[in-house]
Amino acid sequence: MKLNYVFQNKAYLITAFTHSSKSRRCIVNSYERLEFLGDALLDFLVIRHTFLNYDQNITPGRVTDIKQDLSNNNHLGYILVSFNLHTKIRYNSNEISKRIQSYVNNTNIHHSTNSPVPKILADVFEALIAAMFFDANNSLEFVWKIIEPFLGKIIDRSIVNPSLNPMRRFSDEGGKIIQEFTNETESVCLVQMPNGTYYEGHGKNKKLAKSDACQQALNHKD
Amino acid sequence: MKLNYVFQNKAYLITAFTHSSKSRRCIVNSYERLEFLGDALLDFLVIRHTFLNYDQNITPGRVTDIKQDLSNNNHLGYILVSFNLHTKIRYNSNEISKRIQSYVNNTNIHHSTNSPVPKILADVFEALIAAMFFDANNSLEFVWKIIEPFLGKIIDRSIVNPSLNPMRRFSDEGGKIIQEFTNETESVCLVQMPNGTYYEGHGKNKKLAKSDACQQALNHKD
Repeated sequence: MKLNYVFQNKAYLITAFTHSSKSRRCIVNSYERLEFLGDALLDFLVIRHTFLNYDQNITPGRVTDIKQDLSNNNHLGYILVSFNLHTKIRYNSNEISKRIQSYVNNTNIHHSTNSPVPKILADVFEALIAAMFFDANNSLEFVWKIIEPFLGKIIDRSIVNPSLNPMRRFSDEGGKIIQEFTNETESVCLVQMPNGTYYEGHGKNKKLAKSDACQQALNHKD
Repeated sequence: MKLNYVFQNKAYLITAFTHSSKSRRCIVNSYERLEFLGDALLDFLVIRHTFLNYDQNITPGRVTDIKQDLSNNNHLGYILVSFNLHTKIRYNSNEISKRIQSYVNNTNIHHSTNSPVPKILADVFEALIAAMFFDANNSLEFVWKIIEPFLGKIIDRSIVNPSLNPMRRFSDEGGKIIQEFTNETESVCLVQMPNGTYYEGHGKNKKLAKSDACQQALNHKD
């Protein structure tokens, strides 16, 4: 797979591929701000795509799930590696190098997106979207034409076959969060289903504890 | 103040001004989906404005605060009322009618944005932005040219004179959320400052309880 775009202004391209561990040692800016803009641009393009192509049945709640599914590191990082663009990232960290290598090796063997994807891969993909947007004179249509062949399919699949996240399913089932608690070693979340049963979830942060509790409540229900 | 825009396709305009309480009784769609798109569009335009006009010192964290400050109901709802556009909203609810009237009366007397702003006013403003975007052939520049005179100033003021939200200040000061608890009547949040002191916040939902706890911790510190 190839990404068909030639940059007019190479500075955008270089910034999008420069991690802060590298930029500290040279005059080039890191991709942080481009990534932030790319994330908002991607959100907007995904919502616009669903608005223009699907009818009223796709509620904002559903679109939020689709966006989360897409924006989670798996899809975006996987696309970057498919283009072999991970080899172009400029960073200065053994830890990042190891994580990328381990992900790429796993992906090559299993052809799947199940391995944990280093955040830097999705970040660079988002920065790259913003870089193309500025380089193409702020043209939404231009950027969408480039990324649509890869992202459009994933969005459409999400819509036809929604994999609702456990927290939304839990809340749709009438579940309630009763208590969240964080101590020195972990977070704990206590939830209750409409039949009165309590479930306790654990995780290294609040989000993971909540997701664990919701998943347990749903497992017992199914 | 007047909003200088004439719609080519009046259907967009009507949808942007139709609340779900009205759309249930007629064939027109409500503004819900337009509002969702307008919210993402506004986020993106605000981030782009700060990216293009301010340097590296405006970090993504700062831009998030600016966005929250802008997107909170106060500013957007206030702008809608300044244009006298609240009189054009189509809804079918005495409760909404009362809330809008009370806000408008207060605003006329005090010329301030301190009164609580009904959510519908900000929602319609966001839906209107999305409606103009589609009506103007998906042109970002066109929409920005229309809203920039009102929003640009607020953004610039936020940047020069940042009013950090209490939760971010609390976390910058090294505060920690210890426990969150929701019972039948209210939410409670327990936080701890680095010196070991605990503060308890209360509110009708988790977010308000957390904000109350952080504000108390900061008051004692100041």
